[in-house]
Amino acid sequence: MVAKAFKGIFPYLVTPLTEAGRLKEQPLADLVEHLIRKGVHGLTPLGSTGEAPYLDRETKRRMVEVTVQAAAERVPVVAGICSMSTPGAMQEAAETEKLGVDGILAVMPSYFPLNDRQVVAHFRAVARAVACPVTLYTNPKFQTWDFSVDALRELAEEPNIQYLKDASGNVGKLMSIVTTLGDRIKLFSDTSSVPLFVFLIGGVGWMSGPACVIPEQSIALYETARQGRWEEAAALQKKQWPLNVAFQRYSLSACVKAGLEMQGFPVGSPMPPQKQLDPEGRRALEKILRDVGALPS
Amino acid sequence: MVAKAFKGIFPYLVTPLTEAGRLKEQPLADLVEHLIRKGVHGLTPLGSTGEAPYLDRETKRRMVEVTVQAAAERVPVVAGICSMSTPGAMQEAAETEKLGVDGILAVMPSYFPLNDRQVVAHFRAVARAVACPVTLYTNPKFQTWDFSVDALRELAEEPNIQYLKDASGNVGKLMSIVTTLGDRIKLFSDTSSVPLFVFLIGGVGWMSGPACVIPEQSIALYETARQGRWEEAAALQKKQWPLNVAFQRYSLSACVKAGLEMQGFPVGSPMPPQKQLDPEGRRALEKILRDVGALPS
Amino acid sequence: MVAKAFKGIFPYLVTPLTEAGRLKEQPLADLVEHLIRKGVHGLTPLGSTGEAPYLDRETKRRMVEVTVQAAAERVPVVAGICSMSTPGAMQEAAETEKLGVDGILAVMPSYFPLNDRQVVAHFRAVARAVACPVTLYTNPKFQTWDFSVDALRELAEEPNIQYLKDASGNVGKLMSIVTTLGDRIKLFSDTSSVPLFVFLIGGVGWMSGPACVIPEQSIALYETARQGRWEEAAALQKKQWPLNVAFQRYSLSACVKAGLEMQGFPVGSPMPPQKQLDPEGRRALEKILRDVGALPS
Amino acid sequence: MVAKAFKGIFPYLVTPLTEAGRLKEQPLADLVEHLIRKGVHGLTPLGSTGEAPYLDRETKRRMVEVTVQAAAERVPVVAGICSMSTPGAMQEAAETEKLGVDGILAVMPSYFPLNDRQVVAHFRAVARAVACPVTLYTNPKFQTWDFSVDALRELAEEPNIQYLKDASGNVGKLMSIVTTLGDRIKLFSDTSSVPLFVFLIGGVGWMSGPACVIPEQSIALYETARQGRWEEAAALQKKQWPLNVAFQRYSLSACVKAGLEMQGFPVGSPMPPQKQLDPEGRRALEKILRDVGALPS
Repeated sequence: MVAKAFKGIFPYLVTPLTEAGRLKEQPLADLVEHLIRKGVHGLTPLGSTGEAPYLDRETKRRMVEVTVQAAAERVPVVAGICSMSTPGAMQEAAETEKLGVDGILAVMPSYFPLNDRQVVAHFRAVARAVACPVTLYTNPKFQTWDFSVDALRELAEEPNIQYLKDASGNVGKLMSIVTTLGDRIKLFSDTSSVPLFVFLIGGVGWMSGPACVIPEQSIALYETARQGRWEEAAALQKKQWPLNVAFQRYSLSACVKAGLEMQGFPVGSPMPPQKQLDPEGRRALEKILRDVGALPS
Repeated sequence: MVAKAFKGIFPYLVTPLTEAGRLKEQPLADLVEHLIRKGVHGLTPLGSTGEAPYLDRETKRRMVEVTVQAAAERVPVVAGICSMSTPGAMQEAAETEKLGVDGILAVMPSYFPLNDRQVVAHFRAVARAVACPVTLYTNPKFQTWDFSVDALRELAEEPNIQYLKDASGNVGKLMSIVTTLGDRIKLFSDTSSVPLFVFLIGGVGWMSGPACVIPEQSIALYETARQGRWEEAAALQKKQWPLNVAFQRYSLSACVKAGLEMQGFPVGSPMPPQKQLDPEGRRALEKILRDVGALPS
Repeated sequence: MVAKAFKGIFPYLVTPLTEAGRLKEQPLADLVEHLIRKGVHGLTPLGSTGEAPYLDRETKRRMVEVTVQAAAERVPVVAGICSMSTPGAMQEAAETEKLGVDGILAVMPSYFPLNDRQVVAHFRAVARAVACPVTLYTNPKFQTWDFSVDALRELAEEPNIQYLKDASGNVGKLMSIVTTLGDRIKLFSDTSSVPLFVFLIGGVGWMSGPACVIPEQSIALYETARQGRWEEAAALQKKQWPLNVAFQRYSLSACVKAGLEMQGFPVGSPMPPQKQLDPEGRRALEKILRDVGALPS
Repeated sequence: MVAKAFKGIFPYLVTPLTEAGRLKEQPLADLVEHLIRKGVHGLTPLGSTGEAPYLDRETKRRMVEVTVQAAAERVPVVAGICSMSTPGAMQEAAETEKLGVDGILAVMPSYFPLNDRQVVAHFRAVARAVACPVTLYTNPKFQTWDFSVDALRELAEEPNIQYLKDASGNVGKLMSIVTTLGDRIKLFSDTSSVPLFVFLIGGVGWMSGPACVIPEQSIALYETARQGRWEEAAALQKKQWPLNVAFQRYSLSACVKAGLEMQGFPVGSPMPPQKQLDPEGRRALEKILRDVGALPS
């Protein structure tokens, strides 16, 4: 446990898997070591880049344990939970906290649509199941619900709900959130949003799948913004943007895993029915990684 | 195991749950007994009315075991499987088959979008993991994928993929399916479609959540259609329609569970974050159940 | 003017256009003559197949005049109006009525979203601007509004709002409309719905773009259904279905115009930015037209 | 005509209308005078705030004439054209240019969906119908098409297609546009996007409905950003944001018109079926206008 506010670059760790779907523990530990040495400010196992919705409980448990152990309290670990039912999410949150994480990222995949009252009740119950800080997560593209600003206002009253990661890519909504909630909830940018903008309106960091393959570039963007050199940060953001475009087009986990394999980390393929990157995608990704300096050119 | 073709009314069983989320086994056995005595032609535990995406593995296992035991081979049991990952779905299918079911209903909740190739690979793998007949399921409202007609054509080549339940409510697509695939795949109507129409274009039955509360009325519609008395069937369909409208508006599991409670089956509430029927919804439902003769007036 | 209830097959007339976008009057008159001789029960110029949203006022006026004159009171003419503003729609309706039509088809293209109150006020104003029967039209795919059942209930109180053509393809909604409104509003099937089903639940006819190229087949389906030979009607519906699929895939006006050209009516191409049928689409269409007997094989 | 590059604040002028739907010319001239005195950098009649899709040709023509005359070459006038058909749009563009405008804003409302090839052909034809600079406009919420980055790349080759106003609110897409097209096309922010961000990535200005009621505040945001005082600009953006939220919620033309009426400009109500601001909306708007200093407090 690392007791302080979360900020900066938190790579969404991929979940290294064998063909049979088993966790590859050593590649995970190596990746954690590598990212910490590169200077990341925290680690987020079991986000959507980490394929959390597709993994069974035991794989998720080991994923967190190995990450916590390898991080060795050098940086905070904020681990995802991912359950459709409220009782399941409460139990998963409580069990995850006991594994020694510094915070929970609360993801709720869904089936039937949910209204505000149901959404608030779910995340409030999850928050009360743990003592550690909770980061709310939403990605309306892949869910049948979303946070309204009103729902967030209610949830921000829970003392340990402290962060929000909104993956909608809807900056108008982010503006509404910061102007309504001020600093009662801290924003993390996500992969599909534009971190440059999130930093400019007060965001504290960036939880990002691509940061696994471009940790230094991600840190540079964050630091430049933090120092108020905004035009320079905009130039960095533009330079990195083609990577984002590729990652969105070719599927996130597949791209991050393929990029890490190119960098020498044998993290394997995504769990089916997710697909592996095809040859055309690999070539496009390789070129982009060279262009941003993430592979030797 | 009951070895013959599935046809007729297959109620989607609710999953009776205590407040703590445990399976209430006796109410389930009683409901099964009741429905068989009313004349239903089969039973489908663990569909979406059965809240399958929200249940843990052990609850799902017991749900199937109790249903199979209570049905006692009088009617076929087609049990749902519900896993986002292909390896998980294969394992769940194989384990479910061993519990003595007559068929599998293959549901795939989802997170990231999937293309045809991924969808075909998933369901083909599931079909090959079992020997029993497989019913494909799709509900594009709650998923990030759907079957194309081309994907169905490929899947229909698997010998044990024999049925399709398409909950899109899109009859144009059903027309395209029957005109393209003929009888290589048999159609079951679902709750949100119009069974009258599905029967008219050759559908073999109706898997339906509401059939738990209106088994006789559902059977009457099916039999009238089967005997070619189409105008009469249309009149029955119209009479039952307000029930469908209410069930769609107020959430399916909540309505079926509330209706069964009114009929004396203590099946409890849906698993949160799903919501219970509110008082206004209960009143509306009660009136409709009286109107269709499912509650004494 | 032909004063009686509308029923049966009403082809949506294409608008024959020169390359410069001028109305080709003789081909239109010839098409009208041809369709009446084939036995259609009415004619609908200026529906969406007629490219109404793309035409200027003068072209629309001539389109109606030529149709009315060529029809010569042998069958009713129900002409579309198509204006985004309420004052514009009222004026267009009144002017169209003066051209001697038997009814108005009220189409409302849209830009900003509209709520029920706005939708009701618009169509009520249009209905009150004329004395003739009004057919309401909705196609939610191409609009930013749709009729709720409540809005239709209010509108059905206007004495001359007598018909509805719902192009949503959503038969569940059609069921809700007929069970709520009974015969206070009469249903016409549209191209993308399944007329077989609309007839079975009480629909009075079929307004259809494809009926321009398959008038006899459309009439046969209608008559078979009207005589209660439902399985036979279902077989006809299935036989015709590939035509519908092609028309949806390749764009409606382009297909109907290309099909008519193949049948010897020089109706030209759709108005840009709509596209002409490409060679692959032409070949697919030609084959389908031969298969249903609409071209010599 | 004012021959230089467009940049800065271009209010989307409302179209002042009598109850009968006639243009109120004097209030328009007064509003133009007022906005120029406040320092706006240009004027945009007949955008969507100007209700262009709802107006007839004669009203649109007078709207442009009065604006051009009142502006008297002190600031550039970029007038909207708004036609669904390509021939109609070409004619409208050519006629508009002859009225003495400095540029065209090319809006394309739509009915049937369009692909890239159709979109490119339409806007290329419009551009070639005039000699003046063309600003491309897209608002995918209200259309059945959108610009792909590839389509924009093709269109940017037309020498007089020089600006883009993308009202999607999708900043990820804006990033893709600027990183792909560089300065071959210049970006204007729109009302629903976040101008702060558009300025930071190189945008040249802001075409905005709300700028009619908050011209000084809009100019202050633009100037602060232009001078590189980004944190200060972010604070201004946050302060103005509630206005945007209200305008989105209560409908754009209705809000701008109501706000101008509060400021003493008798611009009337929006054209039906658009609705007027209701009393609750008026109160909310009035409070917000006081808070940002646009009404005396």
